[in-house]
Amino acid sequence: MIIVMKSWAEQEHIDKVVQRLAAIGCEAHISVGQSRTVIGAIGDREVIQQQPWRAMAGVERAVPVEKPYKFVSREFQPEDTVIKVGSAQIGGGVFAPMAGPCAVESRDQLFRTAQAVREAGATILRGDAFKPRTSPFSFQGLAEEGLQLLAEARQEFDMPFVAEVLDPREVELVASYADILRIGTRNMANFALLSEVGKVHKPVQLKRGFTATIDEWLNAAEYIYKEGNHEVVLVERGIRTFETATRNTLDISAVPVIKHMSHLPVIIDPSHSSGRRHLVVPLARAAIAVGADGFIVDVHPAPETAQVDGDQALLPSEFEELMDQMRNLAAALDLTI
Amino acid sequence: MIIVMKSWAEQEHIDKVVQRLAAIGCEAHISVGQSRTVIGAIGDREVIQQQPWRAMAGVERAVPVEKPYKFVSREFQPEDTVIKVGSAQIGGGVFAPMAGPCAVESRDQLFRTAQAVREAGATILRGDAFKPRTSPFSFQGLAEEGLQLLAEARQEFDMPFVAEVLDPREVELVASYADILRIGTRNMANFALLSEVGKVHKPVQLKRGFTATIDEWLNAAEYIYKEGNHEVVLVERGIRTFETATRNTLDISAVPVIKHMSHLPVIIDPSHSSGRRHLVVPLARAAIAVGADGFIVDVHPAPETAQVDGDQALLPSEFEELMDQMRNLAAALDLTI
Amino acid sequence: MIIVMKSWAEQEHIDKVVQRLAAIGCEAHISVGQSRTVIGAIGDREVIQQQPWRAMAGVERAVPVEKPYKFVSREFQPEDTVIKVGSAQIGGGVFAPMAGPCAVESRDQLFRTAQAVREAGATILRGDAFKPRTSPFSFQGLAEEGLQLLAEARQEFDMPFVAEVLDPREVELVASYADILRIGTRNMANFALLSEVGKVHKPVQLKRGFTATIDEWLNAAEYIYKEGNHEVVLVERGIRTFETATRNTLDISAVPVIKHMSHLPVIIDPSHSSGRRHLVVPLARAAIAVGADGFIVDVHPAPETAQVDGDQALLPSEFEELMDQMRNLAAALDLTI
Amino acid sequence: MIIVMKSWAEQEHIDKVVQRLAAIGCEAHISVGQSRTVIGAIGDREVIQQQPWRAMAGVERAVPVEKPYKFVSREFQPEDTVIKVGSAQIGGGVFAPMAGPCAVESRDQLFRTAQAVREAGATILRGDAFKPRTSPFSFQGLAEEGLQLLAEARQEFDMPFVAEVLDPREVELVASYADILRIGTRNMANFALLSEVGKVHKPVQLKRGFTATIDEWLNAAEYIYKEGNHEVVLVERGIRTFETATRNTLDISAVPVIKHMSHLPVIIDPSHSSGRRHLVVPLARAAIAVGADGFIVDVHPAPETAQVDGDQALLPSEFEELMDQMRNLAAALDLTI
Repeated sequence: MIIVMKSWAEQEHIDKVVQRLAAIGCEAHISVGQSRTVIGAIGDREVIQQQPWRAMAGVERAVPVEKPYKFVSREFQPEDTVIKVGSAQIGGGVFAPMAGPCAVESRDQLFRTAQAVREAGATILRGDAFKPRTSPFSFQGLAEEGLQLLAEARQEFDMPFVAEVLDPREVELVASYADILRIGTRNMANFALLSEVGKVHKPVQLKRGFTATIDEWLNAAEYIYKEGNHEVVLVERGIRTFETATRNTLDISAVPVIKHMSHLPVIIDPSHSSGRRHLVVPLARAAIAVGADGFIVDVHPAPETAQVDGDQALLPSEFEELMDQMRNLAAALDLTI
Repeated sequence: MIIVMKSWAEQEHIDKVVQRLAAIGCEAHISVGQSRTVIGAIGDREVIQQQPWRAMAGVERAVPVEKPYKFVSREFQPEDTVIKVGSAQIGGGVFAPMAGPCAVESRDQLFRTAQAVREAGATILRGDAFKPRTSPFSFQGLAEEGLQLLAEARQEFDMPFVAEVLDPREVELVASYADILRIGTRNMANFALLSEVGKVHKPVQLKRGFTATIDEWLNAAEYIYKEGNHEVVLVERGIRTFETATRNTLDISAVPVIKHMSHLPVIIDPSHSSGRRHLVVPLARAAIAVGADGFIVDVHPAPETAQVDGDQALLPSEFEELMDQMRNLAAALDLTI
Repeated sequence: MIIVMKSWAEQEHIDKVVQRLAAIGCEAHISVGQSRTVIGAIGDREVIQQQPWRAMAGVERAVPVEKPYKFVSREFQPEDTVIKVGSAQIGGGVFAPMAGPCAVESRDQLFRTAQAVREAGATILRGDAFKPRTSPFSFQGLAEEGLQLLAEARQEFDMPFVAEVLDPREVELVASYADILRIGTRNMANFALLSEVGKVHKPVQLKRGFTATIDEWLNAAEYIYKEGNHEVVLVERGIRTFETATRNTLDISAVPVIKHMSHLPVIIDPSHSSGRRHLVVPLARAAIAVGADGFIVDVHPAPETAQVDGDQALLPSEFEELMDQMRNLAAALDLTI
Repeated sequence: MIIVMKSWAEQEHIDKVVQRLAAIGCEAHISVGQSRTVIGAIGDREVIQQQPWRAMAGVERAVPVEKPYKFVSREFQPEDTVIKVGSAQIGGGVFAPMAGPCAVESRDQLFRTAQAVREAGATILRGDAFKPRTSPFSFQGLAEEGLQLLAEARQEFDMPFVAEVLDPREVELVASYADILRIGTRNMANFALLSEVGKVHKPVQLKRGFTATIDEWLNAAEYIYKEGNHEVVLVERGIRTFETATRNTLDISAVPVIKHMSHLPVIIDPSHSSGRRHLVVPLARAAIAVGADGFIVDVHPAPETAQVDGDQALLPSEFEELMDQMRNLAAALDLTI
């Protein structure tokens, strides 16, 4: 931590900061500049970061030098985390295409979609049984019945599936069916939920909060990681900005930023970020080109009847065309798909 | 809902929209414009809003005419909701000053603060026993022991208290002690938690998600309201923007916007929005001038030792001075404080 | 400047940074931490800030300790700048109400408005002759004819006036009529224009770019200041955020932040920030309570016929009521209005 | 335009809106809904959009159905605009790689860079002679001398070049040297400058304002287009968001959005959006995959000595590697590069 003093700070203010550092077992390196003094605090990162430095007289601000997370950082583990689920792989030179309906609505809708995406080349099935809806009057999902259908589809089409979990009380239930759990964007900072999925022995997809910084997102991953679950997949799904032409602004730069800072795999959700069907295909192509480890795409056999997010679902035929393009790009980039 | 067709849309596309509206029991009003057709959809608001109109061929966009919430709107209830808790009142011409420590740390810290804010004129005590911390390594609160201390302080200083609840499994516990429950900014869209507090017979403070629009915030209030709990107090606490000089950007305009759209009381949190002690007093003054029904302010007897958010806590003496200014302003604005 | 090295940086990387600092005549203070080295760069602020530190091998980031501006900072001049224009004053315990039509449309419209706001207590007249319009097809203002009408209104009602200047080629013209020049929000970073108004001997209102940080805004003021014009008034007029209930989000916290960092007066524009008539009065009240040195408000005798921004203009009668409230608040706050 | 009335609006309010529409030569289509009336306004788009509808009693809001721009829309011109400059082409199945130094610093720096990027496959040279700097104390560019050096480099390496113009008074000068003019992000809404470049017979690169919506950006293009200059290239260079891990957030979705709405070519600037060297290569790959018509990349022979934006400049060798990857991707996507 760098503690920047105010230009009018007196020696006694500096002394107090130094004493506080000593009291918590840390060292102070003092630099006296042209117009102000700067104190480098050396010692236990977490202890230092939790002091309210700015509440001390004469302190202007405190600039952290270290990130608040540790286990998910590339400094802690230089090599990429690679995750295997059934026959599928995420990371390690393998681009993982995940696809399926946003919400499971019926056996027929799920099976038609699962068959189509499997044949087109998807390796992991998506489909939610619990939906977090902005309005209390909207369709909330099929609950356990949806999970049972997903388990049958897994059997039928030999694909592991990912499903969202919304409530700490439902983690056990969802984990008893799903191969991968997903934490949605609205729950990224729901620490009670993060702790629960951290205790489960299944991979977790952690969607970025649409208003979370990359640091906050990695911190949320740390919550899961420190509980013992090390198989975390980060999902970039767009952030909230002033632009309204898309539902959210896909922060594609987050992929190389994360690759630099963390060893965790990161995938792109072009469906929920854009909210518009005709944008999904170009954004999915960008995902592989920028270095993501996979994508997760909404597909629906009849989007105009979908109960959730029909505006953004690809038709099975559109997904098939997309997968053709993805295979060309994977070859050009020397990746397996 | 207004359904705007694409300029190239054909009669058959228009017909399909009209048929869909008929199928869900709604009427279509068609306006043929210079370059495109626009269809007014008349009928049940919720049914119409849940159709994926943009997924239909030839549809450019669908513009909602009605808001998604109903019970919390001023159209549903024209007169202001006024909330009484013990001797305190929120709304109805009474400005409610709420103050206390961000987190309960010890009996001494809590009681010193409670006594000071009570003497200065605060009518409701704040103090949290459960803290949602960005880092898993930070202080997480005293839990039930904190609630017990708060209940003792209530007795001693004759002030009802408000405390945060983080987890649906803890709603019953917190509600068994606290006079008012608080949903924090990170949980505004935690629908499992909103439903639980909606079943409790105690007022709820609903903090605005720091990335939530006013419409989303009112929608979250609707979640609580529809479960039967009608005593919801909205808390504006700043939104996330590009500006970093303050922790968040206090959206002071939200107060008159809400007053126009909803009958619920709305208060300001100048401490968490600004994150800086020297900004709290001017923002608290702005709160009463703009028409808020109260404020909630962090006070700490020794901010530089605070375990949570010490940077923003007022000293008891600063709070006392603030209350003097507030009384002058209340008189000028013809309000009771 | 604090230069933070990467955790893997070697001695040679550190040496190169130290050598570079020596080459530009600066000193290096080296702190070796647990996991990385941090270098404090001491010397000429501007020279240090212009080096591309992050382009050097082994450097993670460079954290500025000093602000990039100097003359407009409170460290350079501790006492408030107070500006006098004719009989009006801005700052120094005087709250300056400025009002008038957004755009000058006709003699009749201008004079009716000027008379009304003068009688209600405004001390400075606003009215623009050049309008920057988003669409090339919109009304662009009356140009010099508008300035002539404003000059006549000044004579008639004994009020100095402020008018916007859009183009460096028109600075001389506008300055030959107006008492105060205004730089609009879209031109805050138009450095060619800032330099020109910096050479004029008339006060300048500098609106915050709706996407500018406070630091960038103060930097723009520095551009004007360093050319020799020290009479700069900062105008907070809202920033662009994700919230669409208001045209922009009034950043009311910017007022106490600026008061802390700069000696320049700062006023609020509640009309352009909110874009809605019914929000103007509460936000104007908040302006004086938070510590602003004035406001600038749109008034129009017939808003529904206004050629620019009619949605936000107050009626003369509404402005009169507002001024009654402002006088009460000024008394409570011990200010002159 | 759709005019949405308030739920409490009376017949007389509706009548007044209808009368106003009649007065401006437009028609009204009235839909009476469950709780409110909606009026479709049919007639001249520009005339309707300029009325202050919300200032009329009983009107809640006015929702535009048509975009404010016309000539740059795909409805006006369905086929893509293709631009040829010397031997280079932008659009029409050709991906245009543009590269060079951010600022021209010296003959040697420019020529070394130009030679390297030409050999690696760039078709257009970038290099600025006028720089808009946030601080008045920073390097402002070599001015006309820089333009002369660029003209010599064009001759030597047979590459057209693009250079920024900052001031309406300098358009003629820059246009007398450069093959393509560029409007920078801070000037996107500098309408005086847009008008001037609209009169020039050279292509114009229009950078997106970092706080501009896509609609505002297309509107700015309309400003240039309507003056007679139809060769406008849109440059996506990132928008300002809350994320600080990158200088700005590259809005990659803007590319397919623009392709849908406009016939103008659109390119990506991965250097200025990210501000970090190691992010440039992955983002450049994403640019071609998402469907952009080119990129513009900063290259510098010695970034750590660059006078402007050295943090983001690629080394010549890095650019060469990037171009190898781009050729593979172009082949996979069936594009010419």
